[in-house]
Amino acid sequence: MTPNTLLLDVLAGRPVDRTPVWLMRQAGRILPEYRQLRASLRDFKELVESPAAAAEATLQPVDHLGVDAAIVFSDILTVPEGLGLLYEMVPGFGPRFPKVIERPSDILELRSAQEAADQLEYVYGAVAESRKRLAGRVPLIGFAGAPWTIFCYMIEGQGSKTFSKARKWLRQYPHESAALLERIAETTSIYLYRQIDAGAQVVQLFDSWAGVLSEDLYREFALPASIAALSPLGQTGVPRIHFAKGIGGHTLETCGVEAYGVDWTTSARRARAAYGPGVVLQGNLDPSALYGTPESVGRLTTQMLYDFGPNHIANLGHGVYPDTELDSVKAFIAAVKAHRPEPIVCA
Amino acid sequence: MTPNTLLLDVLAGRPVDRTPVWLMRQAGRILPEYRQLRASLRDFKELVESPAAAAEATLQPVDHLGVDAAIVFSDILTVPEGLGLLYEMVPGFGPRFPKVIERPSDILELRSAQEAADQLEYVYGAVAESRKRLAGRVPLIGFAGAPWTIFCYMIEGQGSKTFSKARKWLRQYPHESAALLERIAETTSIYLYRQIDAGAQVVQLFDSWAGVLSEDLYREFALPASIAALSPLGQTGVPRIHFAKGIGGHTLETCGVEAYGVDWTTSARRARAAYGPGVVLQGNLDPSALYGTPESVGRLTTQMLYDFGPNHIANLGHGVYPDTELDSVKAFIAAVKAHRPEPIVCA
Repeated sequence: MTPNTLLLDVLAGRPVDRTPVWLMRQAGRILPEYRQLRASLRDFKELVESPAAAAEATLQPVDHLGVDAAIVFSDILTVPEGLGLLYEMVPGFGPRFPKVIERPSDILELRSAQEAADQLEYVYGAVAESRKRLAGRVPLIGFAGAPWTIFCYMIEGQGSKTFSKARKWLRQYPHESAALLERIAETTSIYLYRQIDAGAQVVQLFDSWAGVLSEDLYREFALPASIAALSPLGQTGVPRIHFAKGIGGHTLETCGVEAYGVDWTTSARRARAAYGPGVVLQGNLDPSALYGTPESVGRLTTQMLYDFGPNHIANLGHGVYPDTELDSVKAFIAAVKAHRPEPIVCA
Repeated sequence: MTPNTLLLDVLAGRPVDRTPVWLMRQAGRILPEYRQLRASLRDFKELVESPAAAAEATLQPVDHLGVDAAIVFSDILTVPEGLGLLYEMVPGFGPRFPKVIERPSDILELRSAQEAADQLEYVYGAVAESRKRLAGRVPLIGFAGAPWTIFCYMIEGQGSKTFSKARKWLRQYPHESAALLERIAETTSIYLYRQIDAGAQVVQLFDSWAGVLSEDLYREFALPASIAALSPLGQTGVPRIHFAKGIGGHTLETCGVEAYGVDWTTSARRARAAYGPGVVLQGNLDPSALYGTPESVGRLTTQMLYDFGPNHIANLGHGVYPDTELDSVKAFIAAVKAHRPEPIVCA
């Protein structure tokens, strides 16, 4: 069996025969095999914290969907947990932290970055076990939440439409906010380094709540913290993908890593024009496009591939919705695999 | 007393001495006078449905903040109520519709556009009473939710982070979705026409959930429905403001009305460059900026005024958050009033 290195090739700027494809949240409720695995366990956290079970979930989309990359099955909320804030996953509601950061002095009670990263051995175990089971079939992606997104959960304790409490912190306690973001960034850096050490061949940072920030706050707090998390990993040679959701209204620009995720509310044409043709971009089909017929999924996917052109990793613009039909997911993957870029004609 | 016509002047392209200013949600919990009025009534809906009480709330920010415009105190959910779906305002949760549109055949049970608009006499009463009490001091703005945003609530029955059920409708029932949007648009058109007839001097359409749509769905469904709602009002001569929140990643362009709202996640410089210097833009200070000190509010407001330049209506990029300090709101208004554009020097 020839190893599928499409993702690593695109990230390294090597020529490829076709665009690689994977989906955010590809391991999850869309797969009957996942629902079966999940039903055999107590709860979501048991799945995340058991390396064998997490590795099984990690490999399912490779086996059953034929994607070009695996991403370790885990959660972005492991980092606040490592720092000392335990989370619960409440069915039908989402994550909730019984204890949050209420005032600046609460930061003093958090663990150090090194101690926090040391709490997360189960993630490194899941990475190692996944890599072993993949046996080189496709590359393995490790990931973490971006510091700003983790900061949101640590302040608010749960999801929010506006995250206005977290934004209030940035405005009212700018120095303490920067200090907390720095602690999270340092933890994230060690955390991703340990994932690489355990076998992750690519790492992705998810800034899921970047889109609630104005340009000034994004540039002052969120972006520098993401750079602080990713920059030290440059020496490993492992490619880094930065995915800041919702920044299409201002900063579509490079920040020193190997690839950039694009969400579905930023048009592919605008992203390509803003970043330039040589930058590797990942995304961005509207997850709701997979509610359409397989024919329309194919048509919209092909359009997206033309809009991005070369230096592209095909993906959705956000995680796949849990009620998506499996046939639509397969139509998306098939459309990418069938697509061949137009040959360059020398006149 | 000289009537303050700054807002009407900017919208008509007449020269002004300074930029007009008002705030979305300026009538509300930030004002002690509002909290007192609200406490004297049974609930939020009694306030919306009583023309005298609504007019009192409408005038409070004119009296106590010195803004350059009043906006009638009401709610965007009056239109689905007119169509036949009653809503409840659940304290600490937000709006909720016990009955929603679940399948295409449910559309048949809705009222016609004319019948729906006829249900909303209390809004026209609030507009008339507000206009009378204003006695020409500042212009009065009427408003409605944009068809796509109303569609979201009619399908989902409450707020949502992704409105994926509503987006699923667009993908699975494109014809029925267009028909429902058309019914909402026609209702909205009559509704705004009746507000103008009762005394509204400007109308604004709020597309609060435009930002969950990809460019293709926005162009195919949301934007045409907004145009269908606003276009017939052109003959009245009353200026129209279209505020689609979250479209900064794709369509910053004119659609035939007199002014465009800009949200806080789209940079003022990008918006001005995209629309061009001659288009009237409204916005867009980050509401969280008002959590800062009065000095920082002043600095950020002045920066925004420079970034937009002429043809600008100063506002926040979204409704003011209810826990905002009154002094910060006043600092925002004062900074706009103190600002004089740089004189044009002829060399």
